[in-house]
Amino acid sequence: MLMPMASLYTYLLICNATLLLLHRCSGLSLDTVRDFLTREEDTIVFSIIERAKYPLNLPAYEVPAYFAGSRHDASFAELFVRDSEAVQTKAGRYQNQEEIPFFPFRVPFILSPSYNFTSDLYPAAAFVNLNDEIWSIYFNQFLSLLAKNGDDGNYAATAASDFLCLQALSKRINYGRYVAEVKFRGDPQNYTTLIRNKDKDALMKLLTSESQEDVVKRRVQKKAMVFGQNVTSNGPVETGDSNSSQASFKVDPSLVYKLYDQWVIPLTKQVEVEYLLHRLD
Amino acid sequence: MLMPMASLYTYLLICNATLLLLHRCSGLSLDTVRDFLTREEDTIVFSIIERAKYPLNLPAYEVPAYFAGSRHDASFAELFVRDSEAVQTKAGRYQNQEEIPFFPFRVPFILSPSYNFTSDLYPAAAFVNLNDEIWSIYFNQFLSLLAKNGDDGNYAATAASDFLCLQALSKRINYGRYVAEVKFRGDPQNYTTLIRNKDKDALMKLLTSESQEDVVKRRVQKKAMVFGQNVTSNGPVETGDSNSSQASFKVDPSLVYKLYDQWVIPLTKQVEVEYLLHRLD
Repeated sequence: MLMPMASLYTYLLICNATLLLLHRCSGLSLDTVRDFLTREEDTIVFSIIERAKYPLNLPAYEVPAYFAGSRHDASFAELFVRDSEAVQTKAGRYQNQEEIPFFPFRVPFILSPSYNFTSDLYPAAAFVNLNDEIWSIYFNQFLSLLAKNGDDGNYAATAASDFLCLQALSKRINYGRYVAEVKFRGDPQNYTTLIRNKDKDALMKLLTSESQEDVVKRRVQKKAMVFGQNVTSNGPVETGDSNSSQASFKVDPSLVYKLYDQWVIPLTKQVEVEYLLHRLD
Repeated sequence: MLMPMASLYTYLLICNATLLLLHRCSGLSLDTVRDFLTREEDTIVFSIIERAKYPLNLPAYEVPAYFAGSRHDASFAELFVRDSEAVQTKAGRYQNQEEIPFFPFRVPFILSPSYNFTSDLYPAAAFVNLNDEIWSIYFNQFLSLLAKNGDDGNYAATAASDFLCLQALSKRINYGRYVAEVKFRGDPQNYTTLIRNKDKDALMKLLTSESQEDVVKRRVQKKAMVFGQNVTSNGPVETGDSNSSQASFKVDPSLVYKLYDQWVIPLTKQVEVEYLLHRLD
Protein backbone atom coordinates (compact mmCIF):
# COMPACT_ATOMS: atom_id res chain seq x y z
CA MET A 1 0.00 0.00 0.00
CA LEU A 2 3.00 2.29 0.09
CA MET A 3 3.52 1.86 -3.64
CA PRO A 4 2.73 4.65 -6.05
CA MET A 5 -0.82 4.72 -7.27
CA ALA A 6 -1.66 2.12 -9.87
CA SER A 7 -5.10 1.78 -11.32
CA LEU A 8 -7.19 -1.20 -12.20
CA TYR A 9 -6.78 -0.08 -15.79
CA THR A 10 -3.02 -0.40 -15.68
CA TYR A 11 -3.51 -3.77 -14.12
CA LEU A 12 -5.60 -4.93 -17.00
CA LEU A 13 -3.22 -3.87 -19.70
CA ILE A 14 -0.66 -6.27 -18.36
CA CYS A 15 -2.82 -9.00 -16.87
CA ASN A 16 -5.02 -9.55 -19.83
CA ALA A 17 -2.22 -11.47 -21.49
CA THR A 18 -1.91 -13.92 -18.62
CA LEU A 19 -5.25 -15.63 -18.57
CA LEU A 20 -5.82 -18.14 -15.85
CA LEU A 21 -8.22 -20.62 -17.33
CA LEU A 22 -9.62 -22.58 -14.43
CA HIS A 23 -12.69 -24.70 -14.82
CA ARG A 24 -15.35 -25.18 -12.21
CA CYS A 25 -17.51 -28.26 -12.46
CA SER A 26 -21.19 -27.61 -12.87
CA GLY A 27 -22.76 -28.87 -9.69
CA LEU A 28 -26.27 -27.48 -9.90
CA SER A 29 -28.63 -29.70 -7.92
CA LEU A 30 -31.47 -29.39 -5.47
CA ASP A 31 -28.90 -29.69 -2.68
CA THR A 32 -26.63 -26.92 -3.92
CA VAL A 33 -29.64 -24.68 -4.50
CA ARG A 34 -30.99 -25.32 -1.02
CA ASP A 35 -27.56 -24.81 0.55
CA PHE A 36 -27.11 -21.52 -1.27
CA LEU A 37 -30.52 -20.20 -0.25
CA THR A 38 -29.99 -21.17 3.39
CA ARG A 39 -26.52 -19.63 3.56
CA GLU A 40 -27.71 -16.46 1.83
CA GLU A 41 -30.26 -15.98 4.62
CA ASP A 42 -27.36 -15.37 7.01
CA THR A 43 -25.86 -12.82 4.62
CA ILE A 44 -29.19 -11.01 4.34
CA VAL A 45 -29.77 -10.98 8.11
CA PHE A 46 -26.20 -9.80 8.79
CA SER A 47 -26.54 -7.04 6.21
CA ILE A 48 -29.80 -5.66 7.57
CA ILE A 49 -28.54 -5.84 11.17
CA GLU A 50 -25.57 -3.78 10.00
CA ARG A 51 -27.78 -1.27 8.20
CA ALA A 52 -29.86 -0.88 11.37
CA LYS A 53 -26.72 0.37 13.13
CA TYR A 54 -27.30 3.70 11.41
CA PRO A 55 -30.40 5.86 11.71
CA LEU A 56 -32.50 6.51 8.63
CA ASN A 57 -30.24 9.38 7.45
CA LEU A 58 -32.86 10.83 5.19
CA PRO A 59 -30.62 13.35 3.37
CA ALA A 60 -28.98 10.37 1.66
CA TYR A 61 -32.26 9.47 -0.03
CA GLU A 62 -33.80 12.78 -0.88
CA VAL A 63 -33.45 14.10 -4.38
CA PRO A 64 -32.10 17.62 -3.93
CA ALA A 65 -34.66 20.28 -4.86
CA TYR A 66 -32.43 21.51 -7.67
CA PHE A 67 -32.48 18.06 -9.26
CA ALA A 68 -36.23 17.56 -9.24
CA GLY A 69 -37.51 17.03 -12.73
CA SER A 70 -34.06 17.36 -14.24
CA ARG A 71 -32.22 14.52 -15.86
CA HIS A 72 -30.05 14.25 -12.73
CA ASP A 73 -33.01 13.22 -10.65
CA ALA A 74 -31.08 10.91 -8.34
CA SER A 75 -30.41 10.69 -4.63
CA PHE A 76 -26.98 10.54 -3.05
CA ALA A 77 -27.56 6.87 -2.21
CA GLU A 78 -28.33 6.08 -5.85
CA LEU A 79 -25.22 7.87 -7.07
CA PHE A 80 -23.18 6.08 -4.45
CA VAL A 81 -24.48 2.68 -5.54
CA ARG A 82 -23.83 3.53 -9.20
CA ASP A 83 -20.22 4.50 -8.52
CA SER A 84 -19.56 1.52 -6.23
CA GLU A 85 -21.16 -0.87 -8.67
CA ALA A 86 -19.08 0.57 -11.50
CA VAL A 87 -15.92 -0.35 -9.57
CA GLN A 88 -17.24 -3.87 -8.99
CA THR A 89 -18.30 -4.21 -12.62
CA LYS A 90 -14.84 -3.19 -13.78
CA ALA A 91 -13.42 -5.71 -11.31
CA GLY A 92 -15.46 -8.47 -12.89
CA ARG A 93 -18.03 -9.19 -10.20
CA TYR A 94 -20.79 -9.74 -12.73
CA GLN A 95 -18.82 -12.25 -14.77
CA ASN A 96 -20.47 -14.69 -12.38
CA GLN A 97 -24.06 -14.98 -13.57
CA GLU A 98 -25.21 -15.43 -9.99
CA GLU A 99 -24.81 -11.69 -9.55
CA ILE A 100 -26.66 -9.01 -11.50
CA PRO A 101 -25.89 -5.29 -11.31
CA PHE A 102 -28.58 -2.69 -10.61
CA PHE A 103 -27.04 -0.34 -13.17
CA PRO A 104 -25.65 -2.42 -15.98
CA PHE A 105 -23.57 -0.41 -18.38
CA ARG A 106 -20.72 -0.94 -20.73
CA VAL A 107 -17.30 -1.32 -19.21
CA PRO A 108 -14.51 -1.55 -21.73
CA PHE A 109 -12.52 -4.21 -19.93
CA ILE A 110 -12.89 -6.62 -17.10
CA LEU A 111 -9.91 -6.10 -14.89
CA SER A 112 -9.84 -9.15 -12.66
CA PRO A 113 -7.75 -12.25 -13.05
CA SER A 114 -9.64 -14.41 -15.55
CA TYR A 115 -11.83 -17.30 -14.56
CA ASN A 116 -13.93 -19.53 -16.69
CA PHE A 117 -17.30 -19.58 -14.96
CA THR A 118 -19.63 -22.39 -15.87
CA SER A 119 -23.07 -21.33 -16.96
CA ASP A 120 -25.77 -23.38 -15.32
CA LEU A 121 -28.56 -21.26 -16.73
CA TYR A 122 -30.42 -21.58 -20.01
CA PRO A 123 -28.88 -18.70 -22.00
CA ALA A 124 -32.10 -17.24 -23.39
CA ALA A 125 -33.62 -17.02 -19.90
CA ALA A 126 -30.57 -15.95 -17.90
CA PHE A 127 -31.38 -12.25 -18.30
CA VAL A 128 -34.48 -12.50 -16.08
CA ASN A 129 -34.14 -10.42 -12.92
CA LEU A 130 -36.23 -8.23 -10.65
CA ASN A 131 -33.61 -5.68 -9.65
CA ASP A 132 -35.88 -2.73 -10.41
CA GLU A 133 -38.57 -4.10 -8.09
CA ILE A 134 -36.00 -4.97 -5.40
CA TRP A 135 -34.59 -1.45 -5.57
CA SER A 136 -38.01 0.13 -5.28
CA ILE A 137 -39.20 -2.07 -2.41
CA TYR A 138 -35.97 -1.64 -0.49
CA PHE A 139 -35.96 2.17 -0.60
CA ASN A 140 -39.69 2.87 -0.64
CA GLN A 141 -41.05 0.26 1.74
CA PHE A 142 -38.45 -1.68 3.69
CA LEU A 143 -35.93 0.95 4.76
CA SER A 144 -38.31 3.08 6.81
CA LEU A 145 -39.39 -0.05 8.71
CA LEU A 146 -35.78 -1.06 9.36
CA ALA A 147 -34.02 2.17 10.29
CA LYS A 148 -34.83 4.36 13.26
CA ASN A 149 -35.51 8.02 12.59
CA GLY A 150 -32.48 10.18 12.99
CA ASP A 151 -29.48 11.65 11.22
CA ASP A 152 -25.90 10.97 12.25
CA GLY A 153 -24.30 12.23 9.05
CA ASN A 154 -22.75 8.92 8.08
CA TYR A 155 -24.28 9.03 4.62
CA ALA A 156 -21.51 7.19 2.78
CA ALA A 157 -21.29 4.39 5.35
CA THR A 158 -25.07 4.16 5.32
CA ALA A 159 -25.24 3.99 1.54
CA ALA A 160 -22.45 1.39 1.53
CA SER A 161 -24.57 -0.61 3.93
CA ASP A 162 -27.64 -0.20 1.71
CA PHE A 163 -25.58 -1.43 -1.22
CA LEU A 164 -24.71 -4.63 0.68
CA CYS A 165 -28.35 -5.24 1.57
CA LEU A 166 -29.38 -4.69 -2.03
CA GLN A 167 -26.69 -7.03 -3.34
CA ALA A 168 -27.66 -9.77 -0.88
CA LEU A 169 -31.38 -9.44 -1.65
CA SER A 170 -30.74 -9.28 -5.38
CA LYS A 171 -28.54 -12.37 -5.34
CA ARG A 172 -31.10 -14.34 -3.34
CA ILE A 173 -34.18 -13.29 -5.26
CA ASN A 174 -32.60 -13.61 -8.70
CA TYR A 175 -31.27 -17.01 -7.68
CA GLY A 176 -34.81 -18.03 -8.51
CA ARG A 177 -33.37 -18.60 -11.99
CA TYR A 178 -31.26 -21.45 -10.62
CA VAL A 179 -34.14 -22.81 -8.56
CA ALA A 180 -36.29 -22.87 -11.69
CA GLU A 181 -33.56 -24.47 -13.78
CA VAL A 182 -33.15 -27.30 -11.27
CA LYS A 183 -36.88 -27.85 -11.04
CA PHE A 184 -37.23 -27.80 -14.82
CA ARG A 185 -34.48 -30.38 -15.24
CA GLY A 186 -36.16 -32.57 -12.62
CA ASP A 187 -39.49 -32.69 -14.44
CA PRO A 188 -39.01 -31.40 -18.01
CA GLN A 189 -42.15 -32.93 -19.49
CA ASN A 190 -44.56 -31.42 -17.02
CA TYR A 191 -42.89 -27.99 -17.12
CA THR A 192 -42.67 -27.99 -20.92
CA THR A 193 -46.41 -28.39 -21.25
CA LEU A 194 -47.14 -25.56 -18.85
CA ILE A 195 -44.51 -23.29 -20.46
CA ARG A 196 -45.90 -23.95 -23.96
CA ASN A 197 -49.35 -23.02 -22.63
CA LYS A 198 -47.90 -19.94 -20.92
CA ASP A 199 -49.84 -21.10 -17.87
CA LYS A 200 -48.38 -18.82 -15.22
CA ASP A 201 -50.85 -19.87 -12.54
CA ALA A 202 -50.13 -23.56 -12.91
CA LEU A 203 -46.38 -22.86 -12.96
CA MET A 204 -46.67 -20.81 -9.79
CA LYS A 205 -48.66 -23.58 -8.15
CA LEU A 206 -46.10 -26.20 -9.17
CA LEU A 207 -43.28 -24.05 -7.77
CA THR A 208 -45.02 -23.37 -4.46
CA SER A 209 -44.61 -25.41 -1.32
CA GLU A 210 -46.33 -23.60 1.51
CA SER A 211 -44.89 -25.89 4.15
CA GLN A 212 -41.36 -25.30 2.89
CA GLU A 213 -41.95 -21.55 2.71
CA ASP A 214 -43.19 -21.65 6.28
CA VAL A 215 -39.98 -23.36 7.39
CA VAL A 216 -37.92 -20.66 5.66
CA LYS A 217 -39.88 -17.79 7.20
CA ARG A 218 -39.63 -19.22 10.70
CA ARG A 219 -35.94 -19.88 10.20
CA VAL A 220 -35.07 -16.35 9.09
CA GLN A 221 -37.04 -14.95 12.02
CA LYS A 222 -35.00 -17.18 14.30
CA LYS A 223 -31.78 -16.06 12.61
CA ALA A 224 -32.74 -12.45 13.33
CA MET A 225 -33.11 -13.38 17.01
CA VAL A 226 -29.89 -15.38 17.18
CA PHE A 227 -27.68 -13.00 15.17
CA GLY A 228 -29.29 -9.81 16.45
CA GLN A 229 -29.05 -10.48 20.17
CA ASN A 230 -26.58 -8.90 22.55
CA VAL A 231 -24.10 -11.66 23.34
CA THR A 232 -22.28 -11.42 26.64
CA SER A 233 -19.28 -13.47 27.70
CA ASN A 234 -21.38 -15.21 30.35
CA GLY A 235 -25.09 -14.47 30.16
CA PRO A 236 -27.74 -16.64 28.52
CA VAL A 237 -28.05 -16.78 24.78
CA GLU A 238 -31.24 -16.13 22.88
CA THR A 239 -32.18 -19.33 21.13
CA GLY A 240 -34.98 -17.88 19.07
CA ASP A 241 -37.39 -20.30 20.69
CA SER A 242 -38.89 -18.07 23.35
CA ASN A 243 -41.29 -15.21 23.01
CA SER A 244 -39.50 -13.35 25.76
CA SER A 245 -40.61 -9.75 25.48
CA GLN A 246 -37.63 -8.50 27.44
CA ALA A 247 -35.17 -9.68 24.83
CA SER A 248 -33.88 -6.84 22.74
CA PHE A 249 -32.76 -7.44 19.20
CA LYS A 250 -30.87 -5.20 16.82
CA VAL A 251 -33.56 -5.78 14.20
CA ASP A 252 -37.15 -6.74 14.99
CA PRO A 253 -37.34 -10.47 14.10
CA SER A 254 -40.91 -10.04 12.88
CA LEU A 255 -39.64 -7.54 10.29
CA VAL A 256 -37.31 -10.20 8.89
CA TYR A 257 -40.24 -12.62 8.78
CA LYS A 258 -42.22 -9.97 6.92
CA LEU A 259 -39.33 -9.28 4.54
CA TYR A 260 -39.36 -12.92 3.45
CA ASP A 261 -43.13 -13.35 3.60
CA GLN A 262 -44.10 -10.28 1.62
CA TRP A 263 -41.13 -9.70 -0.64
CA VAL A 264 -38.27 -12.20 -0.82
CA ILE A 265 -40.29 -15.38 -1.32
CA PRO A 266 -42.95 -13.95 -3.68
CA LEU A 267 -40.30 -12.16 -5.78
CA THR A 268 -38.14 -15.28 -5.97
CA LYS A 269 -41.11 -17.24 -7.27
CA GLN A 270 -41.85 -14.47 -9.75
CA VAL A 271 -38.27 -14.80 -11.02
CA GLU A 272 -38.78 -18.57 -11.28
CA VAL A 273 -41.95 -18.19 -13.35
CA GLU A 274 -40.46 -15.56 -15.64
CA TYR A 275 -37.34 -17.66 -16.15
CA LEU A 276 -39.42 -20.70 -17.03
CA LEU A 277 -41.50 -18.72 -19.53
CA HIS A 278 -38.24 -18.18 -21.44
CA ARG A 279 -36.86 -21.67 -20.80
CA LEU A 280 -37.85 -22.96 -24.25
CA ASP A 281 -37.00 -19.80 -26.23
CA MET B 1 -32.71 3.96 -11.26
CA LEU B 2 -34.28 4.40 -14.67
CA MET B 3 -33.03 7.97 -14.84
CA PRO B 4 -30.18 8.94 -17.13
CA MET B 5 -26.75 8.58 -15.59
CA ALA B 6 -25.78 11.30 -13.21
CA SER B 7 -22.48 11.35 -11.40
CA LEU B 8 -21.54 12.20 -7.87
CA TYR B 9 -19.69 15.15 -9.38
CA THR B 10 -22.83 16.60 -10.92
CA TYR B 11 -24.50 16.07 -7.60
CA LEU B 12 -21.90 18.17 -5.83
CA LEU B 13 -22.02 21.08 -8.16
CA ILE B 14 -25.61 21.67 -7.21
CA CYS B 15 -25.69 20.42 -3.64
CA ASN B 16 -22.73 22.29 -2.35
CA ALA B 17 -24.86 25.39 -2.22
CA THR B 18 -27.45 23.78 0.01
CA LEU B 19 -25.49 22.99 3.13
CA LEU B 20 -27.33 21.15 5.83
CA LEU B 21 -25.68 22.24 9.02
CA LEU B 22 -26.75 19.77 11.65
CA HIS B 23 -25.00 19.54 14.96
CA ARG B 24 -24.35 16.40 16.91
CA CYS B 25 -23.73 16.72 20.60
CA SER B 26 -20.41 15.46 21.80
CA GLY B 27 -21.21 12.45 23.94
CA LEU B 28 -17.82 10.85 24.42
CA SER B 29 -17.78 8.91 27.66
CA LEU B 30 -16.63 5.58 28.99
CA ASP B 31 -20.11 4.23 28.27
CA THR B 32 -20.21 5.35 24.64
CA VAL B 33 -16.71 4.00 24.10
CA ARG B 34 -17.60 0.64 25.62
CA ASP B 35 -20.85 0.45 23.67
CA PHE B 36 -19.05 1.21 20.42
CA LEU B 37 -16.35 -1.41 21.00
CA THR B 38 -18.90 -4.08 21.93
CA ARG B 39 -21.12 -3.36 18.93
CA GLU B 40 -18.13 -3.28 16.57
CA GLU B 41 -17.30 -6.85 17.65
CA ASP B 42 -20.49 -8.00 15.94
CA THR B 43 -19.53 -6.11 12.78
CA ILE B 44 -16.08 -7.71 12.78
CA VAL B 45 -17.44 -11.22 13.38
CA PHE B 46 -20.13 -10.80 10.69
CA SER B 47 -17.55 -9.53 8.20
CA ILE B 48 -15.11 -12.38 8.72
CA ILE B 49 -17.91 -14.97 8.59
CA GLU B 50 -18.87 -13.44 5.26
CA ARG B 51 -15.29 -13.50 3.98
CA ALA B 52 -15.06 -17.19 4.94
CA LYS B 53 -17.90 -17.88 2.49
CA TYR B 54 -15.32 -17.64 -0.28
CA PRO B 55 -12.19 -19.75 -0.63
CA LEU B 56 -8.80 -18.09 -0.46
CA ASN B 57 -8.90 -17.09 -4.15
CA LEU B 58 -5.19 -16.57 -4.36
CA PRO B 59 -5.09 -14.91 -7.81
CA ALA B 60 -6.70 -11.86 -6.18
CA TYR B 61 -3.67 -11.37 -3.94
CA GLU B 62 -0.74 -12.25 -6.14
CA VAL B 63 1.18 -9.48 -7.77
CA PRO B 64 1.29 -10.42 -11.45
CA ALA B 65 4.79 -11.40 -12.58
CA TYR B 66 4.88 -8.48 -15.00
CA PHE B 67 4.31 -6.06 -12.11
CA ALA B 68 7.06 -7.38 -9.86
CA GLY B 69 9.53 -4.66 -9.05
CA SER B 70 7.70 -2.12 -11.16
CA ARG B 71 5.94 0.88 -9.74
CA HIS B 72 2.62 -0.91 -10.29
CA ASP B 73 3.53 -3.55 -7.76
CA ALA B 74 0.00 -4.13 -6.51
CA SER B 75 -2.40 -7.03 -6.33
CA PHE B 76 -5.92 -7.05 -7.72
CA ALA B 77 -7.30 -6.86 -4.17
CA GLU B 78 -5.25 -3.75 -3.43
CA LEU B 79 -6.39 -2.05 -6.62
CA PHE B 80 -9.96 -3.00 -5.80
CA VAL B 81 -9.71 -1.49 -2.31
CA ARG B 82 -8.13 1.67 -3.72
CA ASP B 83 -10.92 2.18 -6.24
CA SER B 84 -13.68 1.36 -3.76
CA GLU B 85 -12.18 3.60 -1.13
CA ALA B 86 -11.88 6.43 -3.65
CA VAL B 87 -15.65 6.24 -4.19
CA GLN B 88 -16.26 6.31 -0.45
CA THR B 89 -13.79 9.16 0.03
CA LYS B 90 -15.56 11.18 -2.63
CA ALA B 91 -18.83 10.36 -0.90
CA GLY B 92 -17.54 11.80 2.34
CA ARG B 93 -17.10 8.68 4.47
CA TYR B 94 -13.92 10.00 6.05
CA GLN B 95 -15.46 13.30 7.09
CA ASN B 96 -16.25 11.34 10.23
CA GLN B 97 -12.97 11.09 12.12
CA GLU B 98 -13.96 7.67 13.40
CA GLU B 99 -13.05 6.28 9.98
CA ILE B 100 -9.63 6.44 8.37
CA PRO B 101 -8.88 5.44 4.77
CA PHE B 102 -6.11 2.99 3.87
CA PHE B 103 -5.17 5.08 0.84
CA PRO B 104 -5.71 8.71 1.71
CA PHE B 105 -5.41 10.98 -1.28
CA ARG B 106 -6.72 14.29 -2.42
CA VAL B 107 -10.27 14.40 -3.59
CA PRO B 108 -11.33 17.73 -5.00
CA PHE B 109 -14.81 17.73 -3.49
CA ILE B 110 -16.79 15.90 -0.92
CA LEU B 111 -20.01 14.97 -2.59
CA SER B 112 -22.32 13.99 0.24
CA PRO B 113 -24.98 16.09 1.90
CA SER B 114 -23.11 18.18 4.44
CA TYR B 115 -22.99 17.35 8.12
CA ASN B 116 -21.17 19.09 10.90
CA PHE B 117 -19.37 16.29 12.73
CA THR B 118 -18.16 17.06 16.20
CA SER B 119 -14.53 16.36 16.85
CA ASP B 120 -14.00 14.51 20.10
CA LEU B 121 -10.31 14.01 19.48
CA TYR B 122 -7.39 16.25 20.36
CA PRO B 123 -6.53 17.70 16.93
CA ALA B 124 -2.76 17.21 17.09
CA ALA B 125 -3.17 13.51 17.95
CA ALA B 126 -6.12 12.63 15.73
CA PHE B 127 -3.86 11.55 12.87
CA VAL B 128 -2.62 8.48 14.77
CA ASN B 129 -3.62 5.23 13.09
CA LEU B 130 -2.23 1.77 12.40
CA ASN B 131 -3.80 1.13 9.00
CA ASP B 132 -0.49 0.01 7.46
CA GLU B 133 -0.04 -2.63 10.17
CA ILE B 134 -3.69 -3.71 9.92
CA TRP B 135 -3.36 -4.10 6.16
CA SER B 136 -0.20 -6.15 6.47
CA ILE B 137 -1.51 -8.44 9.23
CA TYR B 138 -4.81 -9.01 7.46
CA PHE B 139 -3.30 -10.06 4.14
CA ASN B 140 -0.07 -11.69 5.32
CA GLN B 141 -1.17 -13.47 8.48
CA PHE B 142 -4.90 -13.58 9.09
CA LEU B 143 -6.39 -14.34 5.67
CA SER B 144 -4.68 -17.70 5.16
CA LEU B 145 -5.96 -18.80 8.59
CA LEU B 146 -9.50 -17.68 7.78
CA ALA B 147 -10.09 -18.80 4.20
CA LYS B 148 -10.04 -22.36 2.97
CA ASN B 149 -7.78 -23.17 0.06
CA GLY B 150 -9.52 -23.01 -3.26
CA ASP B 151 -10.44 -20.77 -6.15
CA ASP B 152 -14.02 -20.06 -7.20
CA GLY B 153 -13.22 -17.05 -9.39
CA ASN B 154 -15.26 -14.59 -7.32
CA TYR B 155 -12.35 -12.20 -6.99
CA ALA B 156 -14.34 -8.98 -6.91
CA ALA B 157 -16.83 -10.27 -4.35
CA THR B 158 -13.95 -11.63 -2.31
CA ALA B 159 -12.03 -8.35 -2.43
CA ALA B 160 -15.23 -6.48 -1.53
CA SER B 161 -15.51 -8.77 1.46
CA ASP B 162 -11.86 -8.15 2.38
CA PHE B 163 -12.53 -4.42 2.19
CA LEU B 164 -15.38 -4.75 4.72
CA CYS B 165 -13.18 -6.75 7.10
CA LEU B 166 -10.42 -4.17 6.79
CA GLN B 167 -12.80 -1.28 7.39
CA ALA B 168 -14.28 -2.95 10.48
CA LEU B 169 -10.87 -3.82 11.93
CA SER B 170 -9.49 -0.37 11.14
CA LYS B 171 -12.44 1.38 12.75
CA ARG B 172 -12.16 -0.75 15.89
CA ILE B 173 -8.40 -0.56 16.31
CA ASN B 174 -8.10 3.13 15.50
CA TYR B 175 -10.95 3.79 17.91
CA GLY B 176 -8.16 3.46 20.44
CA ARG B 177 -7.82 7.23 19.93
CA TYR B 178 -11.24 7.71 21.51
CA VAL B 179 -10.51 5.23 24.27
CA ALA B 180 -7.31 7.13 25.08
CA GLU B 181 -9.06 10.51 24.97
CA VAL B 182 -11.68 9.35 27.46
CA LYS B 183 -9.08 7.87 29.76
CA PHE B 184 -6.96 11.02 29.55
CA ARG B 185 -9.92 13.23 30.42
CA GLY B 186 -10.71 10.97 33.38
CA ASP B 187 -7.25 11.33 34.94
CA PRO B 188 -5.40 14.21 33.25
CA GLN B 189 -2.82 14.76 35.96
CA ASN B 190 -1.55 11.22 36.04
CA TYR B 191 -1.48 10.89 32.25
CA THR B 192 0.19 14.28 31.78
CA THR B 193 3.12 13.26 33.94
CA LEU B 194 3.64 10.02 32.02
CA ILE B 195 3.23 11.72 28.64
CA ARG B 196 5.77 14.43 29.56
CA ASN B 197 8.19 11.67 30.55
CA LYS B 198 7.42 9.79 27.31
CA ASP B 199 7.01 6.76 29.56
CA LYS B 200 5.45 4.30 27.11
CA ASP B 201 5.69 1.34 29.45
CA ALA B 202 3.88 3.07 32.29
CA LEU B 203 1.22 4.35 29.85
CA MET B 204 0.70 0.85 28.49
CA LYS B 205 0.40 -0.49 32.02
CA LEU B 206 -2.13 2.18 32.96
CA LEU B 207 -4.19 1.37 29.85
CA THR B 208 -4.16 -2.37 30.40
CA SER B 209 -6.78 -4.34 32.26
CA GLU B 210 -6.11 -8.02 31.77
CA SER B 211 -9.39 -9.06 33.32
CA GLN B 212 -11.33 -6.77 30.98
CA GLU B 213 -9.35 -8.00 27.98
CA ASP B 214 -10.13 -11.55 28.98
CA VAL B 215 -13.85 -10.76 29.03
CA VAL B 216 -13.59 -9.28 25.53
CA LYS B 217 -11.69 -12.26 24.11
CA ARG B 218 -14.13 -14.77 25.55
CA ARG B 219 -17.05 -12.70 24.31
CA VAL B 220 -15.83 -12.48 20.71
CA GLN B 221 -15.16 -16.22 20.71
CA LYS B 222 -18.72 -16.74 21.87
CA LYS B 223 -20.00 -14.37 19.19
CA ALA B 224 -18.21 -16.45 16.58
CA MET B 225 -20.06 -19.52 17.89
CA VAL B 226 -23.44 -17.83 18.09
CA PHE B 227 -23.28 -15.94 14.77
CA GLY B 228 -21.41 -18.65 12.88
CA GLN B 229 -23.64 -21.59 13.70
CA ASN B 230 -26.13 -23.19 11.34
CA VAL B 231 -29.53 -22.06 12.61
CA THR B 232 -32.48 -24.31 11.82
CA SER B 233 -36.12 -23.47 12.27
CA ASN B 234 -36.41 -26.09 15.01
CA GLY B 235 -33.11 -27.57 16.18
CA PRO B 236 -31.06 -26.50 19.18
CA VAL B 237 -29.10 -23.32 19.12
CA GLU B 238 -25.42 -23.07 19.92
CA THR B 239 -25.07 -20.95 23.02
CA GLY B 240 -21.33 -20.66 22.89
CA ASP B 241 -21.12 -22.29 26.32
CA SER B 242 -20.38 -25.86 25.30
CA ASN B 243 -17.24 -27.38 23.93
CA SER B 244 -19.28 -29.65 21.71
CA SER B 245 -16.92 -30.95 19.10
CA GLN B 246 -19.72 -31.87 16.75
CA ALA B 247 -20.81 -28.27 16.37
CA SER B 248 -19.71 -26.82 13.09
CA PHE B 249 -19.10 -23.13 12.74
CA LYS B 250 -18.56 -20.99 9.67
CA VAL B 251 -15.41 -19.59 11.24
CA ASP B 252 -13.34 -21.35 13.89
CA PRO B 253 -14.20 -19.52 17.15
CA SER B 254 -10.64 -19.95 18.39
CA LEU B 255 -9.42 -17.98 15.36
CA VAL B 256 -11.60 -15.05 16.43
CA TYR B 257 -10.17 -15.33 19.94
CA LYS B 258 -6.69 -15.29 18.42
CA LEU B 259 -7.56 -12.31 16.19
CA TYR B 260 -8.40 -10.26 19.28
CA ASP B 261 -5.69 -11.72 21.49
CA GLN B 262 -2.78 -11.31 19.10
CA TRP B 263 -3.80 -8.37 16.96
CA VAL B 264 -6.92 -6.36 17.73
CA ILE B 265 -6.32 -5.73 21.44
CA PRO B 266 -2.54 -5.13 21.25
CA LEU B 267 -2.90 -2.83 18.23
CA THR B 268 -5.72 -0.88 19.88
CA LYS B 269 -3.51 -0.30 22.90
CA GLN B 270 -0.66 0.72 20.63
CA VAL B 271 -2.98 3.32 19.08
CA GLU B 272 -3.90 4.50 22.59
CA VAL B 273 -0.28 4.96 23.60
CA GLU B 274 0.70 6.72 20.37
CA TYR B 275 -2.31 9.01 20.65
CA LEU B 276 -1.44 9.90 24.23
CA LEU B 277 2.17 10.66 23.29
CA HIS B 278 0.75 13.43 21.05
CA ARG B 279 -1.99 14.48 23.49
CA LEU B 280 -0.03 17.49 24.77
CA ASP B 281 1.51 18.56 21.43
